[in-house]
Amino acid sequence: MRVGVDLGGTKIFAVATGPEGLIGELKAKTPVMGGPVVVVDAIVEVVRELAGGTAPECIGIGAPGAVDFGTGIVRRAPNLKGWWDPFPLGPALSEALGGVTVVVDNDVNVGTVAEHRLGAGRGTDNLFGVFVGTGVGGGVILDGQLHRGPSGFAGELGHVVVRPGGRRCGCGARGHLEAYAGRAGMERRARQHHARGLETMLVDLARTRRMTSSVFARALEARDKVAVGLIDRAVETLGQAVAAAISILDVPLVVVGGGLADRLGPSFVERIHAATAESLPVGQGEEIRVVPGSLGDRGGALGAAVVAGANVDGVTDDRVNPGAQA
Amino acid sequence: MRVGVDLGGTKIFAVATGPEGLIGELKAKTPVMGGPVVVVDAIVEVVRELAGGTAPECIGIGAPGAVDFGTGIVRRAPNLKGWWDPFPLGPALSEALGGVTVVVDNDVNVGTVAEHRLGAGRGTDNLFGVFVGTGVGGGVILDGQLHRGPSGFAGELGHVVVRPGGRRCGCGARGHLEAYAGRAGMERRARQHHARGLETMLVDLARTRRMTSSVFARALEARDKVAVGLIDRAVETLGQAVAAAISILDVPLVVVGGGLADRLGPSFVERIHAATAESLPVGQGEEIRVVPGSLGDRGGALGAAVVAGANVDGVTDDRVNPGAQA
Repeated sequence: MRVGVDLGGTKIFAVATGPEGLIGELKAKTPVMGGPVVVVDAIVEVVRELAGGTAPECIGIGAPGAVDFGTGIVRRAPNLKGWWDPFPLGPALSEALGGVTVVVDNDVNVGTVAEHRLGAGRGTDNLFGVFVGTGVGGGVILDGQLHRGPSGFAGELGHVVVRPGGRRCGCGARGHLEAYAGRAGMERRARQHHARGLETMLVDLARTRRMTSSVFARALEARDKVAVGLIDRAVETLGQAVAAAISILDVPLVVVGGGLADRLGPSFVERIHAATAESLPVGQGEEIRVVPGSLGDRGGALGAAVVAGANVDGVTDDRVNPGAQA
Repeated sequence: MRVGVDLGGTKIFAVATGPEGLIGELKAKTPVMGGPVVVVDAIVEVVRELAGGTAPECIGIGAPGAVDFGTGIVRRAPNLKGWWDPFPLGPALSEALGGVTVVVDNDVNVGTVAEHRLGAGRGTDNLFGVFVGTGVGGGVILDGQLHRGPSGFAGELGHVVVRPGGRRCGCGARGHLEAYAGRAGMERRARQHHARGLETMLVDLARTRRMTSSVFARALEARDKVAVGLIDRAVETLGQAVAAAISILDVPLVVVGGGLADRLGPSFVERIHAATAESLPVGQGEEIRVVPGSLGDRGGALGAAVVAGANVDGVTDDRVNPGAQA
């Protein structure tokens, strides 16, 4: 049995896979107090419960932020509360679980591997995975393999400039995609509009809480002007940045996932496809595909299991396929 | 002896290399009448003269446009007069030269390989090569290998959108880098300004002829306002697109070559570096290097020889290094 864990800012999602595919899955809340050590305890508990009495062969973790794949150290994780310093997540988990092999990778990387091996990207050797959620991230598959890059940050689409001199990004620079197409950037903008007296359901629905993907979806359905404008801008800028990725990488397929994209559905992805085609050289848009991911929020955990399995086998591993399809 | 040929729109530049490095080089004009068949004759003549009585072990060609690396077919070559249809350049040359192995690749790819193996990118496994000339092209080295991509177009930086809805590119789309930073795009813009009554040395120097890189350099030295404005815009947009390539590929080094960049010199590249840093997440600019290419207009031919040699050996080949350094 192999276990894959998607460690998110709000929840821990774990799957167990075997030769016949998916065996089980389990969710838990990510502890927000106590930092990395408490998170390790929570993951250990989820893994033990999921595995029953069995010792997993290996465990894969998809973690948000900057991950050092070789050592299992999470260098920075802005979306995890209290993770200010680099923390050896892989070694800590392995020790707590009796020495089992633990492989840690970036959440977007494992999500991309999942869509490539088990999801909408099956059968393609070159693809780009885009994840539109709180922020915007991307993962790169070239010649059938995940391309991490020397610093592990390949595919970092969220920090591509789409509007020179434009909105301030969370990273401090101006005009980055994430400021226009990430849920957090759109929420900031919606609250600014509201503070200036512009009416919008987005703020009415979210009130003092997080402006979730569902809030955006409901406001869009009601044709709320601010929501429509924000999503229009997100579509345009995503198309522009995705086209840049296609031109630079030469990939014929782009798979779009992430919480916001999943919630807004295929029509959102179809609009990104059209915007991408418009940014490419005339005629080239017809040769590429931009499609929704097919694994939803299970993708990260499944991808983590694949990455861990590949690491253990020393080869690419197809054994979790059937379950993911079932 | 290995021969590398850079087939350009105006000249054919060939080098001969051996175990000790560069043996000789030769230039000829690219025939503008008669299409591919006449160009093949011209290349054959250059190769025969350069090789003397010796039969080259292999020949590499860097060709402008869309090249099918596997078959040696040049699918499109807008910069070569009379090449409207796909032409089997590799097979035709091989036949004309008694069956010698001929490898054809895109000119930007061979230029990137040259800078990686023999030039400013030596010792680095991951880099992006940008060539600023008539147009703007790019080449990608990942994990020590040239990444061509499934359609052979990886690194196509010139068609990245840098100004949404902006200037019309040669390809028909709007706002592409090439319209702002390619010599041809800048010439078009300068002539538009002039036609509207704006004085500029650029048009006075070029008159009815091509606005060469030297014309831009001289107008810049004289602080011609139109030239300064065009180059400022080129620097900004190049920085923006180069930053996108860095974010998507995760490369710590960018080598800038090409006719215009070579002529404008290191200060131009230093400005592109600064503009790149400004587009990246705050702080990340300090971790990357953007440097001038070191091989000048000899790079393409040297790279073609390396690519042909690698193809013959089935391995990467270091034998041309010493000469290129000498």
